[in-house]
Amino acid sequence: MKIDDKLNALRQEMADRNIDAYIIPSSDPHGSEYPVRHWQARAWVSSFNGSAGTVVVTQTSAGLWTDGRYHIVAEELLANLPIDLFKQGVDGVPTVNEWLTETLNAGATVGFDGRLFGVKAVNMMKKEFLPKKLKIVSEFDLFEKIWTDRPALPFEKQFDHLVKFSGKSRKEKLAEIRAKMAACKASAHLLTTLDDIAWLFNIRTANTMPAFGQAYAVIEQDNATLFIPEANITDVKATLTKDGVKTLPYETITDYLKAIKASAVLIDPAAVNWTLYNLIPESCRKVEVPNPTNLMKSIKNQVEVANSRNAHIKDGVAMVQFIHWLECNIGKIKITELSADEMLTKCRWAQNNSFGPSFGTIPAYKEHAAMAHYSATPEGQHELKPEGLFLVDSGGQYLDGLTDTTRTFALGPVSEEQKIHYTLVLKGMLSLSMAKFLKGTRGCNLDIIARQPLWDHGLDYRHGTGHGVGYFLNVHEGPQGFSQGLNDVPMEVGMMTTIEPGYYVEGSHGIRIENIVVTQKEEETQWGEFYSFEALTLVPIDKKPIVKTLMSEREINYLNSYHQNVYEKLSPFLSESESTWLKAATSPL
Amino acid sequence: MKIDDKLNALRQEMADRNIDAYIIPSSDPHGSEYPVRHWQARAWVSSFNGSAGTVVVTQTSAGLWTDGRYHIVAEELLANLPIDLFKQGVDGVPTVNEWLTETLNAGATVGFDGRLFGVKAVNMMKKEFLPKKLKIVSEFDLFEKIWTDRPALPFEKQFDHLVKFSGKSRKEKLAEIRAKMAACKASAHLLTTLDDIAWLFNIRTANTMPAFGQAYAVIEQDNATLFIPEANITDVKATLTKDGVKTLPYETITDYLKAIKASAVLIDPAAVNWTLYNLIPESCRKVEVPNPTNLMKSIKNQVEVANSRNAHIKDGVAMVQFIHWLECNIGKIKITELSADEMLTKCRWAQNNSFGPSFGTIPAYKEHAAMAHYSATPEGQHELKPEGLFLVDSGGQYLDGLTDTTRTFALGPVSEEQKIHYTLVLKGMLSLSMAKFLKGTRGCNLDIIARQPLWDHGLDYRHGTGHGVGYFLNVHEGPQGFSQGLNDVPMEVGMMTTIEPGYYVEGSHGIRIENIVVTQKEEETQWGEFYSFEALTLVPIDKKPIVKTLMSEREINYLNSYHQNVYEKLSPFLSESESTWLKAATSPL
Repeated sequence: MKIDDKLNALRQEMADRNIDAYIIPSSDPHGSEYPVRHWQARAWVSSFNGSAGTVVVTQTSAGLWTDGRYHIVAEELLANLPIDLFKQGVDGVPTVNEWLTETLNAGATVGFDGRLFGVKAVNMMKKEFLPKKLKIVSEFDLFEKIWTDRPALPFEKQFDHLVKFSGKSRKEKLAEIRAKMAACKASAHLLTTLDDIAWLFNIRTANTMPAFGQAYAVIEQDNATLFIPEANITDVKATLTKDGVKTLPYETITDYLKAIKASAVLIDPAAVNWTLYNLIPESCRKVEVPNPTNLMKSIKNQVEVANSRNAHIKDGVAMVQFIHWLECNIGKIKITELSADEMLTKCRWAQNNSFGPSFGTIPAYKEHAAMAHYSATPEGQHELKPEGLFLVDSGGQYLDGLTDTTRTFALGPVSEEQKIHYTLVLKGMLSLSMAKFLKGTRGCNLDIIARQPLWDHGLDYRHGTGHGVGYFLNVHEGPQGFSQGLNDVPMEVGMMTTIEPGYYVEGSHGIRIENIVVTQKEEETQWGEFYSFEALTLVPIDKKPIVKTLMSEREINYLNSYHQNVYEKLSPFLSESESTWLKAATSPL
Repeated sequence: MKIDDKLNALRQEMADRNIDAYIIPSSDPHGSEYPVRHWQARAWVSSFNGSAGTVVVTQTSAGLWTDGRYHIVAEELLANLPIDLFKQGVDGVPTVNEWLTETLNAGATVGFDGRLFGVKAVNMMKKEFLPKKLKIVSEFDLFEKIWTDRPALPFEKQFDHLVKFSGKSRKEKLAEIRAKMAACKASAHLLTTLDDIAWLFNIRTANTMPAFGQAYAVIEQDNATLFIPEANITDVKATLTKDGVKTLPYETITDYLKAIKASAVLIDPAAVNWTLYNLIPESCRKVEVPNPTNLMKSIKNQVEVANSRNAHIKDGVAMVQFIHWLECNIGKIKITELSADEMLTKCRWAQNNSFGPSFGTIPAYKEHAAMAHYSATPEGQHELKPEGLFLVDSGGQYLDGLTDTTRTFALGPVSEEQKIHYTLVLKGMLSLSMAKFLKGTRGCNLDIIARQPLWDHGLDYRHGTGHGVGYFLNVHEGPQGFSQGLNDVPMEVGMMTTIEPGYYVEGSHGIRIENIVVTQKEEETQWGEFYSFEALTLVPIDKKPIVKTLMSEREINYLNSYHQNVYEKLSPFLSESESTWLKAATSPL
């Protein structure tokens, strides 16, 4: 089916229901960043398969909204399609709601599948639609009929994530959640976010990426119920039952909510979907607060931190094996973006307790790296040559942790300009890694430290500086992060966050350097507790493109001591030739 | 009347009305930071006269809440009074609302004068009181009877602030406000903040500090009405009338609001007081948005910026005359904190178009400077000696601008530790002054740049890094500022803001170095518009306490070029001996 045919079929469905505009977001009923294929209607209808994007279709037009990471990719993709690109974050580009309010006639009807939007988003939409009196219709999934080869929900076999890995039993976690519920006088709590459910119940899946499956949960003071496909829980049902967790079929969540007897239900309006929200009886008071699991999950316990250090050693070994192989063979054998990724993935799988990549690797050579979320294809990929910059953003999923690392390598000669860009990005990464800050400081207070070296030169990158990471879970995790946007969540001890400034020149090259850091207590003075970051990622940073004169003494010292640590931690697990190579790669600048 | 008697009289008034706790804030019906004496009930009842503080009285206790600037002063003051100190911002110290909720019995009654609280604050209070079912009573000013010598509202003679000073006529300003009203479909706008009214109507007062008086304003599409004492406007009534501005007696605002016929009234819930808000008829829709005058006023026009540069030259001359006099005479004649202030104020008054100080000078020697908002008294003041650090925070009010400058001087030998503290504070001030940042960057994104040199040493200051300043208006002005607290207002071109990091050692010394900077456009690149700061303040920074080895080359270069500019701008207006002194004081580090 061609895009035109898909759009026309959708327009017919819209016309049949008097819907003037239909919004197709990238999410699923759980607010997931990476929905399973069943929920990828936006990708199906537009052929754009970036992780973030919204398509809006009217009878006469169609538009795709996506953020800075995807502007270049989307521009290329949509050039020959009947879909307009709206670059989010660029001055003067309207939001979806603004565009609908400007474009539609007064009183027009906007449709969407209410399961795919959080309560907060719909309330915001209703408010913005008010001046134009736009109506909303949320009960239709217009793809039901027209998406004839739509994939079913996948089989996701669950297993227990043992306490020696998780550091805390599901009973302890449930007790903590119940205390949070009691504190806000909620007798029940509807939890719908998949990684939070996996974390809370200590269950994971082996055959999916990321490592968790479809489920809902309702926690009551005496009850905890998982709504999850029966077929998936054969290996975990016994231990769940032993720990007081009931299981019911996935789709019965709707009936359960309609009949719920609680006096007050805790729900996160940013996460719970509009359709489920409206099923909860009027008689239940809704306590609308941030989902407590989200913050609890972000603050890693000591077992998780210790295990993560180990996972990063394993992942560092895999990365060093890969980089060593790359440097030894570049210009000698044929290496492409995809074959490089294949080698890297092989090195990761060889590690103990590996569950493969934590997300699809971005192996981006030369101008491909200017697309912050480039994905290589057999047809479009580059062959690597002994010249220019090669950006690799990748990570490993382990029973005992998750990694997310970006390194940019000079495969041979690079231009002076590229070296300057590389050094400015590196300075930002190192400066934020070295920061010492008072308890209570938020990511938006800290973000500028990573941007300043670029800003001083009139340069910038159009993405956040870093995101929280999961523990054998999602590579992107809330609630904290580094960005200019206001986010009231302070950096807490135990939080794991990436630091990944970048710089991108369209059509030429892209640079990003990324470590995961964990917040730690540094010292307590009369002014309060001071925190700092421990770099968990243990992967050498290519020194060849560094312009040393642009580096401060403090930055050089930090890099040297980081490299010394990388060598000490990894060399016991390397072959002699790898170890010799790493010794040189990590020698003082 | 003693504090005990005042508290007891108040408690009797409370008992008569069944009020269990009475809140006495530091504000007035206009939300002013510096209310006239008529509204200083909090100072009268507690004897604490800092600019920020709230007293809460119950039948059995009394407490004062105040922020970090006043912790030391308040601790000394309250040591022998039956009032407990609650240090705002210190971990574990409850807010007023938290304390009331924890302390009072369920169903108790909290009283306050509704004119002294913004709508937003009362709504927040009601929400926080909900779990404990506390009731509020807002119609009583309990000081009416007991404060027998309460001052009347002052006589405040108004004059026209001419367009050659203000840069924009009141007709133009009103047209801009009406456009903002139209954009949010409001047919009327109640404006209650005194400096906003003075700015919008281009009126000022000569005999008050700050230079504006009591008034309310209602702006409609065809009407603009000032509610202002008749006696005060004899000099401006004619031009106001010519420009289409009606005047009515100050107190008639209540009747006007009760009878207002508008379909929708724009009010700022953070500023408009609870009592006035509740007078507006139910039939009027309330459009609750930030007061548009506030942002317009903060973005200085080109005339204001040009005039301010001139005002800062005049003020720099006064400051240099003062510093020169101080350095020549210290240890030779008797100089006290107050006599130093007297000399400084004399130098300011001698300048063209001077209206005296823009706020009460803080002349703080040695340990007095550890109190961030110290105020010298004849009994408590120090005599200055040729040793130690002397902090002077002061400013001038001019027809063509306002200044706010802090300098800390080494009057003679100072300890190595003091030099390090001084240098760290200076590094923070210079670093933020040098920042280059993208349009859209907010004060809370930038604040850390000033704190980092101190944080790196485990040190901090418990106040914001800087505030907006008025133009022949308030020394503290919104909406922008530098602080860790989230504030969504970006730094716009034309905004004037102080940069004033500090460091304070209780019982020993205090350091603060403060310039006013104006945001300017630096360059436009493909990444957007980059902004930077121009330092308006032109006053030498004492080089004697600088530890040069702690300074970066970039900081040294910036300081040297700043000093060169100070010399070039000021020397034409100085005597030969002053000029010679300034030449040395501003010579390269």
